[in-house]
Amino acid sequence: MELPELAEMGRRAKAAARKLAFLGSAEKNAVLLAMADALRENVEEILTANARDVEAAEDKGLKKSLVNRLRLTEAGIEQMAEGLREVAGLADPVGEGEFWTRPNGLRIQRTRVPLGVIAMIYEARPNVTVDAAALCLKAGNAVILRGGSEAIRSNIVLSRVIAQTAEERGLPQGSIQLLERTEREWVQQLLRMNDYVDVVIPRGGAGLIRTVIQNATVPVIETGTGVCHAYVDQTADFAKAIPIVINSKTQNPGVCNALETLLVDESIAENFLPLMAEELYRHGVEIRGCRKTCAILPGAVPATEEDWPTEYLDLILSVRVVQGLDQALDHIFRYSTKHSETIIAEDYSRAQRFLREVDAAAVYVNASTRFTDGGRFGFGAEIGISTQKLHARGPMGLRELTTTKYMIYGSGQIV
Amino acid sequence: MELPELAEMGRRAKAAARKLAFLGSAEKNAVLLAMADALRENVEEILTANARDVEAAEDKGLKKSLVNRLRLTEAGIEQMAEGLREVAGLADPVGEGEFWTRPNGLRIQRTRVPLGVIAMIYEARPNVTVDAAALCLKAGNAVILRGGSEAIRSNIVLSRVIAQTAEERGLPQGSIQLLERTEREWVQQLLRMNDYVDVVIPRGGAGLIRTVIQNATVPVIETGTGVCHAYVDQTADFAKAIPIVINSKTQNPGVCNALETLLVDESIAENFLPLMAEELYRHGVEIRGCRKTCAILPGAVPATEEDWPTEYLDLILSVRVVQGLDQALDHIFRYSTKHSETIIAEDYSRAQRFLREVDAAAVYVNASTRFTDGGRFGFGAEIGISTQKLHARGPMGLRELTTTKYMIYGSGQIV
Repeated sequence: MELPELAEMGRRAKAAARKLAFLGSAEKNAVLLAMADALRENVEEILTANARDVEAAEDKGLKKSLVNRLRLTEAGIEQMAEGLREVAGLADPVGEGEFWTRPNGLRIQRTRVPLGVIAMIYEARPNVTVDAAALCLKAGNAVILRGGSEAIRSNIVLSRVIAQTAEERGLPQGSIQLLERTEREWVQQLLRMNDYVDVVIPRGGAGLIRTVIQNATVPVIETGTGVCHAYVDQTADFAKAIPIVINSKTQNPGVCNALETLLVDESIAENFLPLMAEELYRHGVEIRGCRKTCAILPGAVPATEEDWPTEYLDLILSVRVVQGLDQALDHIFRYSTKHSETIIAEDYSRAQRFLREVDAAAVYVNASTRFTDGGRFGFGAEIGISTQKLHARGPMGLRELTTTKYMIYGSGQIV
Repeated sequence: MELPELAEMGRRAKAAARKLAFLGSAEKNAVLLAMADALRENVEEILTANARDVEAAEDKGLKKSLVNRLRLTEAGIEQMAEGLREVAGLADPVGEGEFWTRPNGLRIQRTRVPLGVIAMIYEARPNVTVDAAALCLKAGNAVILRGGSEAIRSNIVLSRVIAQTAEERGLPQGSIQLLERTEREWVQQLLRMNDYVDVVIPRGGAGLIRTVIQNATVPVIETGTGVCHAYVDQTADFAKAIPIVINSKTQNPGVCNALETLLVDESIAENFLPLMAEELYRHGVEIRGCRKTCAILPGAVPATEEDWPTEYLDLILSVRVVQGLDQALDHIFRYSTKHSETIIAEDYSRAQRFLREVDAAAVYVNASTRFTDGGRFGFGAEIGISTQKLHARGPMGLRELTTTKYMIYGSGQIV
């Protein structure tokens, strides 16, 4: 059964995308700046709607960390507005490209163009509504937003404020649409609207991502899950290793580029682990160790087979003593979600082998996994971190929200 | 129910891909050249197996055009061998990339790496077995091949010859595997083996492509269907328009970049269409015309609504008289499969509008749609033509069989 209302949203988005594709950067930037102003002008209304979301969440007994993700403040709204201004300042990838000329005189231009219609499916944070819409718009795309049901009142106001501003500034109706219905069947249909939607980007927990991958017929960019590893080689400089592990694990444990598993070469385990553990405990981290780890660290909880593939997103670290680089690579091959992996080593050849042989979006030598981020990579902003190999891998900025088209200049050529 | 045999193939492919990823070009090229020799040395066996496929197909009463696609000759096998030598000669995209340095000293290398494991699903032509394996291997990927059941005997021999050569030359077992079972459930499972397969590329008719898109959870690169249009503008040079239309329609009508619909501006229709039709009829093309076309061309068959979205792949052309560029663009927006579209025009601004506003992999001015091809674009060889927007669009060469990985050189950086 088709939901005609949703198909109509798809048609509107596709029609809008057709026009958005050839807007100039100046026009798009002006709209983004106007949206920033509009957010400020509507702070009261946004906060009121958000307060109702927060209240409903508390009534439902939602976890405090989730309620906090949901909560907006005036400063938070100002930050969203600032985010819009930053996106306005980013270089526009649309219209870039290269060209070459064939022996028969055909001139082939490979031109960067918008993807078309992007469906964003995300969870509790209402700021994603504004961030995602801004990035999609700047890259010339129409967007259909579907946020979590907990944030629905906030999202309705936020999307109305920015969509209205866009329309007032002459952008086609349907450029930014929010799916206000949060029932499962609506998402199911959205995921299969190949005639109208070019790409689906899920952003959220492992369950959301899995549902999208299992059900979508529209192409998906998988984001997110990060079971990230650090391997401390026998040649590691402990003065680098300890701060990198602490930073990767504790600086923001709830995010996908945080460390989940520490692998330590057995030849240094007895020296390194007690020093490392002291710092970890000082930061409130629980250690779940392999048998050898537990023998060295009496305070460690014994790890089970379930720990190795687990993304804790919490102050918990699984620790395994390994027999050198080969076993570390095997462990990572088996349990990695191909997000971010780091080796701490002073040995050149082992560092190079790690870089070459680990299959992940970002592979580091002597640096924190927390750098895997569009902003920290220098892209200015990101719509998510791709853990798949097709289209985009790692932090996705504006360029990853575009595709290419061949424009070919002929003078009567035939084959 | 999982088929353990197929999961085992997946495991083998994944293990092989891990090693293939860092083979040097020289090693890969040597294997490709050895495969070419092996094909020649096994001509007899290949032709015997193929004769049995052809016989079985004829017994089953398969259409003559399909039997012809299936049939191999000694010259055809020599051509496959030549194809292998050509792929060996292509530049290897693996290991290319760019790098930049962040203010904190982190050096970020964006490096081209293989996709990993590619599943190719295709139809009757046995040469795809060799072509696809060669391209996947050259780009450092393991491949699982699944050809049409009609060609199964040919494919078994071909894949055995090249896989054995690869193994003898030291490539890991599982680098090239043929799925010998042709039952539907095997393909169904292959399409959902996300743990082992990185990408599925279907190559074949619209039915095959649709099945793959509807059932795959593994990322897909959609290839193929081409309802290609030519729009003849009021400023068209007939001396260009007529050869371009004839070439696009008749040079090889059974392929995806062949022309299916001709759109003619009404202001020139009375002059242009009779000249055009004369040439089309001379080439044996049936014309299915809109009402206005039929009024001008008494020999035209009246087109129905079903003609406009149809990929004939035959000597049939649908023809519609339109009110200028806007109506042409609307028609293309509605019926295009986003493959290849061409405008024949001398007016600069209308040519530019067509290039900009048509959303397709390849958009031409004054050239035949038949140029949309990896070889003709200068890529050397192609694995298919993508009609989706994610990852690759248009002809896919070796580069499109790779992804990127960030390799980041630090010296103790934390966030």
